[in-house]
Amino acid sequence: MAGESTIHVTCAQFEPRIGEIEGNRETSIALVSEAADNGADLVVLPELCQSGYVIESRSEAYALAETVPGGPTIEAWAALAQERKIHIVAGFLERDDDRLYNSAVVVGPGGILGTYRKNHLWDEEALFFERGNRNFPIFHTPFGRLGVLICYDGWFPEAWRLLAIAGADIVCVPTNWVPMPGQPDGLPAMANLLCMSAAHVNSFVVAACDRVGLERGQPFIGQSLIVDHTGWPVAGPASVDEPAMISAEINLGEARRKRNWNDFNQIVRDRRTDLYGEMLGHAATPDWH
Amino acid sequence: MAGESTIHVTCAQFEPRIGEIEGNRETSIALVSEAADNGADLVVLPELCQSGYVIESRSEAYALAETVPGGPTIEAWAALAQERKIHIVAGFLERDDDRLYNSAVVVGPGGILGTYRKNHLWDEEALFFERGNRNFPIFHTPFGRLGVLICYDGWFPEAWRLLAIAGADIVCVPTNWVPMPGQPDGLPAMANLLCMSAAHVNSFVVAACDRVGLERGQPFIGQSLIVDHTGWPVAGPASVDEPAMISAEINLGEARRKRNWNDFNQIVRDRRTDLYGEMLGHAATPDWH
Repeated sequence: MAGESTIHVTCAQFEPRIGEIEGNRETSIALVSEAADNGADLVVLPELCQSGYVIESRSEAYALAETVPGGPTIEAWAALAQERKIHIVAGFLERDDDRLYNSAVVVGPGGILGTYRKNHLWDEEALFFERGNRNFPIFHTPFGRLGVLICYDGWFPEAWRLLAIAGADIVCVPTNWVPMPGQPDGLPAMANLLCMSAAHVNSFVVAACDRVGLERGQPFIGQSLIVDHTGWPVAGPASVDEPAMISAEINLGEARRKRNWNDFNQIVRDRRTDLYGEMLGHAATPDWH
Repeated sequence: MAGESTIHVTCAQFEPRIGEIEGNRETSIALVSEAADNGADLVVLPELCQSGYVIESRSEAYALAETVPGGPTIEAWAALAQERKIHIVAGFLERDDDRLYNSAVVVGPGGILGTYRKNHLWDEEALFFERGNRNFPIFHTPFGRLGVLICYDGWFPEAWRLLAIAGADIVCVPTNWVPMPGQPDGLPAMANLLCMSAAHVNSFVVAACDRVGLERGQPFIGQSLIVDHTGWPVAGPASVDEPAMISAEINLGEARRKRNWNDFNQIVRDRRTDLYGEMLGHAATPDWH
């Protein structure tokens, strides 16, 4: 059955350079080409890997932004996906009219499938970017239904769950994780734990691609990983400070089929929507955020 | 300030025996008394620790059930809390009229504060118990706002989040965790990861008290733990197969105060309620649970 087919998923963790759009494009193209040579069907690249992350001013942000379609990096990724018959999910700085977004584009053999715009902005991103205004879209591909979250989005279990409800079989996470205070030795990074928990309670695959390096004083933590529907890593976590290519053969049919855990429980259907509705959606009764 | 005060939280992991109500009561009283001797302000006991877990028939379930108030174990716990000036959160088999619930009672120096009834039933529990019908209540105590979840409830990020929104500073989790397939060596139990993720993304404390032992062929996995608002364990995980008492000094004011992560982000307020509402609450558009 089609639902049983596997795909080869790769996360290409690297170090984008702030402001070096041409260089970042070349690096990303080289990495995706290498992944395709190794059989990748789907390649995930980091958040804002076209521009770099630590923006210092609105004018710098405007100068680095690209449009969809038309942006040179976007078009290069689309051409590469078409040529190599693969899908790519990659973070970039998007300009739409005069608004900027922290976005990810999804491209495939047929061209641009669309963009996801980060819904939960982290820290000074709020100075430059608008909050996402395209909800949590599902991108339909021949191998399955694909959702996208970016970095801090992963701190919101609502975001993962909405994608599960909307049908996601795999969630791709371009990210630029930064160190979290209190991280102890001997336990996975909290960012990794959030991916594992989300995959487990939604029975979908998570492919998170982080960056590495120090940019304008901001360190990033690498540790890209691919988690299967049980919540356990099948590739990674990758290096904390070196570029790395991690890959896994993923069966998206299994992810969906295995939501039934026993005769009584199906993890997504077991939700008590009769209890969640109003408190989650609207300003709730005792509002103590 | 009052918000800065610490409390001493203890989870008393033990092995209840199915059907041995008097014996379980005696064991629980001995453990809570020992915890109180050691300075506990709040003691959490496992799920269904008054009755045992692996019920075989509805008639057995009825025979083991207790009412609130009036049930002998409930009254014994309430008397103990009053005598020792502590709070206890403990799982028991509740009968209300002719309905049965997998419940936890919260008792304090002033008597019974109320019960929480498990909202998400696991596996054959559905044969004997009704699903909870009291939403996700907050119990107000002198040391802070306390929420309760039971075992499989923890697989629903919605449940944790609703408690955060309603004001919980600490979530007590009486549980009977069973092994999950695929658990690898070298990583915490998935049940532990879910507590850690939930504490982190809601900035509250989680005190989860599991049982141990093999009951009618069903193994349980211990590993009770107390997680602070950063998401990292401050006590436990306890033994996988032996009774254990784990304790931590917890500052609930910190848990609440530290929801502000930087100038822009407050983890609970950052929720995009404009996007979550309808899809989470009601039968959603593309409904692919």
